[in-house]
Amino acid sequence: MSDELNARLRAIVGAANVLDGETDMAPFLSDWRGRYHGRARAVVRPRDTAEVAAVVAACAQAGVAMVPQGGNTGLCGGATPLADGAAVVISLARLDRVRALDPDNDTLTVEAGCTLAAVQEAAQAAGRLFPLSLASEGSCLIGGNLSTNAGGVQVLRYGNTRDLVLGLEAVLPDGRVWDGLRALRKDNTGYDLKQLFIGAEGTLGIVTAAVLKLFPAIRTRATAWVAVADPRAAVRLLGLLRAACGDRVSAFEIVGRTALGLVLRHIPGARDPLAGAPAWTVLVELSDPAVDAPLEAQLEAVLGEAVAQGLASDAVVAASVAQARALWALREDISEAQRIEGVSIKHDVSVPVSRIPEFLERAGAALAARWPDIRVVAFGHIGDGNLHYNLSKAVADDNATFIARTAEVNGIVHDLVCELGGSISAEHGLGQLKREEVLRYKPALEMELMRRVKQAFDPAGLMNPGKVL
Amino acid sequence: MSDELNARLRAIVGAANVLDGETDMAPFLSDWRGRYHGRARAVVRPRDTAEVAAVVAACAQAGVAMVPQGGNTGLCGGATPLADGAAVVISLARLDRVRALDPDNDTLTVEAGCTLAAVQEAAQAAGRLFPLSLASEGSCLIGGNLSTNAGGVQVLRYGNTRDLVLGLEAVLPDGRVWDGLRALRKDNTGYDLKQLFIGAEGTLGIVTAAVLKLFPAIRTRATAWVAVADPRAAVRLLGLLRAACGDRVSAFEIVGRTALGLVLRHIPGARDPLAGAPAWTVLVELSDPAVDAPLEAQLEAVLGEAVAQGLASDAVVAASVAQARALWALREDISEAQRIEGVSIKHDVSVPVSRIPEFLERAGAALAARWPDIRVVAFGHIGDGNLHYNLSKAVADDNATFIARTAEVNGIVHDLVCELGGSISAEHGLGQLKREEVLRYKPALEMELMRRVKQAFDPAGLMNPGKVL
Repeated sequence: MSDELNARLRAIVGAANVLDGETDMAPFLSDWRGRYHGRARAVVRPRDTAEVAAVVAACAQAGVAMVPQGGNTGLCGGATPLADGAAVVISLARLDRVRALDPDNDTLTVEAGCTLAAVQEAAQAAGRLFPLSLASEGSCLIGGNLSTNAGGVQVLRYGNTRDLVLGLEAVLPDGRVWDGLRALRKDNTGYDLKQLFIGAEGTLGIVTAAVLKLFPAIRTRATAWVAVADPRAAVRLLGLLRAACGDRVSAFEIVGRTALGLVLRHIPGARDPLAGAPAWTVLVELSDPAVDAPLEAQLEAVLGEAVAQGLASDAVVAASVAQARALWALREDISEAQRIEGVSIKHDVSVPVSRIPEFLERAGAALAARWPDIRVVAFGHIGDGNLHYNLSKAVADDNATFIARTAEVNGIVHDLVCELGGSISAEHGLGQLKREEVLRYKPALEMELMRRVKQAFDPAGLMNPGKVL
Repeated sequence: MSDELNARLRAIVGAANVLDGETDMAPFLSDWRGRYHGRARAVVRPRDTAEVAAVVAACAQAGVAMVPQGGNTGLCGGATPLADGAAVVISLARLDRVRALDPDNDTLTVEAGCTLAAVQEAAQAAGRLFPLSLASEGSCLIGGNLSTNAGGVQVLRYGNTRDLVLGLEAVLPDGRVWDGLRALRKDNTGYDLKQLFIGAEGTLGIVTAAVLKLFPAIRTRATAWVAVADPRAAVRLLGLLRAACGDRVSAFEIVGRTALGLVLRHIPGARDPLAGAPAWTVLVELSDPAVDAPLEAQLEAVLGEAVAQGLASDAVVAASVAQARALWALREDISEAQRIEGVSIKHDVSVPVSRIPEFLERAGAALAARWPDIRVVAFGHIGDGNLHYNLSKAVADDNATFIARTAEVNGIVHDLVCELGGSISAEHGLGQLKREEVLRYKPALEMELMRRVKQAFDPAGLMNPGKVL
């Protein structure tokens, strides 16, 4: 049976594109961080939608499960096959064409296997911006961004991936192709089916192409690093900025002292932009397509007002592109600095922006009561109510014991997130990692509705089993 | 059986809120334009979500169909019951509370029965903007806006209703309440179920409340009326504006000469802002939360460039708020002027913005070939690729014969829309009006998926039967 299916797959995509040896398959069987390890009966590499459709139809007819895979950069194991080895991995990497650019419609039609960076470049070449931006943009694939509804550093201004999509093409679990590649800003002719595939992590079908929205290229930026009195002051500062500058506020990232301290310790050349080691700092960016937009003046005016109101105590506005880059590097290097420092228990949570201060106070207090020497690395997109909240102990031996208590730690953090009306996965998805955890927090009725949708689209349960649901 | 259900409904909402006399029910049995007329076994007016849930449960147990109704301002008959009189109409008008305002989170939680104007006012009172804006805003209810994914005049900048929603509460067809009232900008914990209820026209459940996004209040505006060479020039002008001003371009409405002519003829006090009766004009609005944004200068610079490129021949920039209002009135009074002029065959279509010129040329040519003296009233949100395209004959006797050919006219217009990758209902929904028509244009596979979703949520088929599907 296995041989028969593999033979069919080889007939569809060519023998060179069906991998079934251990070594060949290895890169597709664990995630980039090496946290998840699975097995597969084969890895198939179709080159276009028709091949994906034929591969899926063959697997469906054989009753074999499928795991769609993009750049394999996810953080929750959504693209790694399970250990049972029963599934075929379908890599979308060869579907890497930009199918169409329509500058007058501000749209770009791309295949799932384009890297996010390639999509950004195609937009840039047309004098436009595709605003989705995240750390792995050089290697993640747009199909994975769509399937996880990726977030990133410009959500405040442009929304999540979901908000950047006008149309989708997807291969359904039975191998039929749904052509929803419409390039329309308005279409009220029934249920908006594309919304189901976005963020479904490949459990309802395989996204093969999308029509993406483009935006005017950004020609002016102003960037500042601001010492704020506390997270409450940060939220107020965001309010001042939004009221004065509207959507020119394109990033608003909080960085706690512990997080910045790790960067200063581990990243060569990193310099603290402010004196006095403030407990909380914020990276602010304004941006505008107008060449002569007076962003620096606007930013300085708001920061002056924030200082007058006691919200901010100090700030530096980047005087050059190089300085702005250096400020951004401090934010972006946090993940790398944490990796060097050692293992931590990571959370990707969101609450309403207004509840961020309460979350930080109460989570910090609850954790410190249990583990007095806990180290909290808190940073992230607080303009979106999204924090990366990572916990460890400074001493390696202590830390191993602490890490063993992950379930207990998660319980404290996630219970509070839930109480504050938040989400236990703001931008990373559920994958394998949070599939069980979500059952503690999502209403049973909502899980039931999700299962009904799954049943409606994938009655045989062959699409990415063991993920999300 | 009928008596038994009505008795239960009276027990739930009070006798005064179950209407079953002809006169009492009449306002709920036809739409505001008087195009659709239905019958019902009762009209029920619950006052809160618990009552809606109990009403729905009672109807579901009795196997009786339900028609949710908001302000009854829809254009496609989606809220009017069918002629068979088998359904209960559930009016959401008494669920009219603003439940919560969270300024730091920029969110407003409202019940389905709030008028759109009340939602706008609640936002304004908090120094914020809720940008959804359309002609019926004084009487339409936000629940209806959500259920039809309403568009309007600011979609270019802020998106459709769908884009303005963070969370929903809905009563499912069996009477259970789904609490999806999350106020989060990021939440990637499974399928985004709210997207299904938005735009479903009440066929999957009843939206009872929503968390809406707020935006910074607008403090500066610049408005212009521009004569463009042709629709192609209008699209190019939009490109120039977006490149220079980004999302400050908050409206871009095309008005054909025939449309403006009707306004000048029928609306007292209407004055043509430009000389020479240009064939195509565009209403442009820039807006900005900054008090001192130099919008007029930016607008004039772009218009100067457009004249230099031969895209525009003349323009007037409003010198006062009153002048800006007068320009907007010319656009907004088109519907009223058409009503006075007489019946026409109306279309609410969208195509990619880039295909608008081709649509206008080819549709106009095809129709004129068949009916040489046809009158085309074309206007609308071309920044969204959305045109209102209304057809009639100038002489009343001729017109009656012409109106009788609606199916043929629709075929010509909609076939072309479909060929250009467009939608036959851009912002008005399907309702009763386009339920059959959509089958000609939507892929059979997509209709099948829609039916599967319907089956998953409403297996008994009791929610708003005869609409959408």
